[in-house]
Amino acid sequence: MNEMMLETWDSESTLCSLEYGHERGNEELLDLILQKVYDEENLTLSKENLMLIPGSTGGIDTIARLFGRSGPILLESPSYVDAIHIFQDHDLQLESIRMDPEGLCLEPLKKILDRHQREGRKSSLLYTIPCFQNPTGITTSENRRREILKLLQPNNVIIVEDDVYRDLHFEDRLPPSYFHLAGGKGVFRIGSFSKTLAPGLRLGWLIGEASLILRCMDCGVFQMGGGANPLSAQWTASLWQTGKLEGHIGNIKKLYRQRRDCALAAMEQYMPREVQWNRPKGGFFLWVSLPEHFDASVIQDAAEQQGVLVANGKDFFIEPHQMNHHLRIAYSFVEEREMVEGIRVLAEVISKQQ
Amino acid sequence: MNEMMLETWDSESTLCSLEYGHERGNEELLDLILQKVYDEENLTLSKENLMLIPGSTGGIDTIARLFGRSGPILLESPSYVDAIHIFQDHDLQLESIRMDPEGLCLEPLKKILDRHQREGRKSSLLYTIPCFQNPTGITTSENRRREILKLLQPNNVIIVEDDVYRDLHFEDRLPPSYFHLAGGKGVFRIGSFSKTLAPGLRLGWLIGEASLILRCMDCGVFQMGGGANPLSAQWTASLWQTGKLEGHIGNIKKLYRQRRDCALAAMEQYMPREVQWNRPKGGFFLWVSLPEHFDASVIQDAAEQQGVLVANGKDFFIEPHQMNHHLRIAYSFVEEREMVEGIRVLAEVISKQQ
Repeated sequence: MNEMMLETWDSESTLCSLEYGHERGNEELLDLILQKVYDEENLTLSKENLMLIPGSTGGIDTIARLFGRSGPILLESPSYVDAIHIFQDHDLQLESIRMDPEGLCLEPLKKILDRHQREGRKSSLLYTIPCFQNPTGITTSENRRREILKLLQPNNVIIVEDDVYRDLHFEDRLPPSYFHLAGGKGVFRIGSFSKTLAPGLRLGWLIGEASLILRCMDCGVFQMGGGANPLSAQWTASLWQTGKLEGHIGNIKKLYRQRRDCALAAMEQYMPREVQWNRPKGGFFLWVSLPEHFDASVIQDAAEQQGVLVANGKDFFIEPHQMNHHLRIAYSFVEEREMVEGIRVLAEVISKQQ
Repeated sequence: MNEMMLETWDSESTLCSLEYGHERGNEELLDLILQKVYDEENLTLSKENLMLIPGSTGGIDTIARLFGRSGPILLESPSYVDAIHIFQDHDLQLESIRMDPEGLCLEPLKKILDRHQREGRKSSLLYTIPCFQNPTGITTSENRRREILKLLQPNNVIIVEDDVYRDLHFEDRLPPSYFHLAGGKGVFRIGSFSKTLAPGLRLGWLIGEASLILRCMDCGVFQMGGGANPLSAQWTASLWQTGKLEGHIGNIKKLYRQRRDCALAAMEQYMPREVQWNRPKGGFFLWVSLPEHFDASVIQDAAEQQGVLVANGKDFFIEPHQMNHHLRIAYSFVEEREMVEGIRVLAEVISKQQ
């Protein structure tokens, strides 16, 4: 975000956007998102497949409330801490499934589905972050996505595809979205402007079957609120129409890629041999695995005392006591010199605790 | 809202507000709200008693999710349609209590509380709109508020005081808020900028005991979203600091009062004798009661065919089939000439259906 972008405010359209809007959200922004989906994935959707949401939060929260109560929610293990928090606020049952470098593992997924069938119940949702997952950075492969769909579709488990990092890819082409692979059936796909533009806008979008989107629009929050954040939506649409948004996303992708490369080089240089980490192809995060006898909380505290902030991996598991030897580094937020020094300090802390 | 107000945008503070904020919300705006509460009710609160919410929706929704599951929610009958909708989305149990001109009636409230006690359970919340209620326009009297508190406090039922119309009073002094009368214990009080400034801001505030507010802040939505709508909050704080907000609220109160007077005069002039309505002392609504043999849906449809829009009262009851002879007129939204003509047409439609 820079000041130039703020000049796109236009008094007249802003005044309109201060009223209650349509439950689906700002029309201009919806059109721009439909065009983006067509350009990127060659998918021709209609407005009935789309609505604006107040950040990805708003999507996860709405889906949890309306669709999460019919059975357990399946999650990647680890998964996004705040999504777990939202599901727990709703007092929903959760079951987590371990991951490998291709995405969530099929065997434990099969076992859960079989067990549910024996018990005469079914999972309500699978919540997944298929691109540059938070916290592991893993992108679920196309093949794995197809296998997961094959398992879930006969069981009518809705997939919630939290795709907020998709726009921040550094290298390869991305696998098709679950929404694409499923022909639009039984998948909610969440996008957001928080990672690419500004989190303070509280703005994202939700794609899905028309009937599923209709159910979300026809809930108390959107009926009462008149659509997601009309003021932010109008501003975002104006900015997008100037063409500045695309350039901005290009710039931050370049920046984050440089920071990732810088972080990886520093990890190679400083980390003790027995520490492992991933090489994310996009997004924000390095996921650092210490040997199992380590206590990540001790490392985190010691690093913090030297001014280095890392997230403790245990918060991303629904059973935290089992997994206390991971750290998450957000390379996206730190300038290069500071990051190299931070990783050097972290490596030193880890070496001392061995 | 007018264009002059938009000039309060300030690039630097806006850039800051595009980041994630503190879960509690924009600091400047919190300070201004604390001062307002002190000025109006002589209540000295601290920031621990306060947080910003994304419109009153955000408050009702958060409270429903976190506090509504331990037992039935008590509601005025009729009550606000979108609040009912939110509670139903959360699949919560509801019990409604009839009203008289002083507010909700004590006898049926006592009966419900006694029944719950016999059944070994308790109500979780009372949801009430104590000032200029939506849809009836009724303001709960101070005496009734005290009696209701006396009944609820020993049962540890939390009161959710949806006070979004409080700032729009036309005449008398208002009764003290439930929050005030309860000494801040066991009451959530909701305020909003939607009615006084602009609904598109999606911004309101929640007042309560520090421990209750802490629980709301420590939920997934606010942890994930970083506080309610930072961009709108910064803008609202800037506007408030210029002193323009107070004048604006004074202007709209005057306007709405004129429109209420105009609506009441037209009702007197045109409505058949057996139709009844209230005389609201603030807020937006006239509540119109037809004789019981009328079907409000028929009247609503016939009026709509002549371009007159009124809300059907049945949507405000949790058991709509029992109450189909009420209409709600929102006098606040219509210019005087148009309102007089609308009420004339409505009266004609009612006379023809007798």
